[in-house]
Amino acid sequence: MNQFEVRTESHRQMVDVTRQVAAAIEGAGEGICHVYVPHTTAAVVINEHADPDVARDLIAAYEAMVPDVHFAHAEGNSDAHLMTTLLGSSVTVPVEDGRLRLGTWQGIFFVELDGPRSRKVWVKVY
Amino acid sequence: MNQFEVRTESHRQMVDVTRQVAAAIEGAGEGICHVYVPHTTAAVVINEHADPDVARDLIAAYEAMVPDVHFAHAEGNSDAHLMTTLLGSSVTVPVEDGRLRLGTWQGIFFVELDGPRSRKVWVKVY
Amino acid sequence: MNQFEVRTESHRQMVDVTRQVAAAIEGAGEGICHVYVPHTTAAVVINEHADPDVARDLIAAYEAMVPDVHFAHAEGNSDAHLMTTLLGSSVTVPVEDGRLRLGTWQGIFFVELDGPRSRKVWVKVY
Repeated sequence: MNQFEVRTESHRQMVDVTRQVAAAIEGAGEGICHVYVPHTTAAVVINEHADPDVARDLIAAYEAMVPDVHFAHAEGNSDAHLMTTLLGSSVTVPVEDGRLRLGTWQGIFFVELDGPRSRKVWVKVY
Repeated sequence: MNQFEVRTESHRQMVDVTRQVAAAIEGAGEGICHVYVPHTTAAVVINEHADPDVARDLIAAYEAMVPDVHFAHAEGNSDAHLMTTLLGSSVTVPVEDGRLRLGTWQGIFFVELDGPRSRKVWVKVY
Repeated sequence: MNQFEVRTESHRQMVDVTRQVAAAIEGAGEGICHVYVPHTTAAVVINEHADPDVARDLIAAYEAMVPDVHFAHAEGNSDAHLMTTLLGSSVTVPVEDGRLRLGTWQGIFFVELDGPRSRKVWVKVY
């Protein structure tokens, strides 16, 4: 199991971690790369990383989608738990010749939903 | 393939199945645990299972997020199909030494979206 | 890695690709089938494919869920990027005796969110 750290700087933030994931699987040959976030208020997604406006738009939209209901959880971050379950705690990407086989425009984003914090990402090829 | 049953008691309900999944993979050594829900109106997610308020907040939020559009499907449960596709039919978790390697606060929840019903969960380590 | 093409005909559309995935894994024995979409404005989900009204309802709901916020991305398709991250870029399904082990009502849908376009789907059993 490879692990790397992500230090987020905002309450909500998308962090492009494609390079870190690629480095973590070097020499892994062939298989399926599992990128796993061991937190309950942060997620991981695959999407466009060429235009940084896309990541900003996503964060704005995630915030706007949180419904106006009464949340009981005393920590006050149920919105972050909600978006985490919708976005997901892991992604899987094909690996060939020790390299991530992503689509042309795809990158891997760590999604901070209740930061800033120090976070971890676990990576392994199966 | 291991399988266990979940009997849900409400129309919408999050059921913590972390123990059942852990039991299903005992002795599996190392790999990736695939937890699969073979239904179209129930899902599986990973999130906090320490404070039961989180699960209650999530259910309230899922219901509130269903948009007010006309649904054509005659069974009248398109809201459940919708939330199933957003939450997902499977999760994957690393396994080391025959044990689930979840984050500190993470548990695995079966998400009933059109109950109460008798449901199945399939588990296997690859 | 197996690959097949999907030619979508509408701006938003769910395309049942269960048969193409099943054909792509023939002879694969046992494992986990990874269905991967290498695009950033198209996704893949598992849901009911018996009644075509379900797929129509899902598309209507996905559109209605996009929040009314200002999107900065100049291409004007941030709504499609948003729904892609919520639905996901891959699904995983158990394979036994070279066949997909889906639930009774489950099918695999390619979800076009910014078409019509010519798209690709990657399939492999691990």
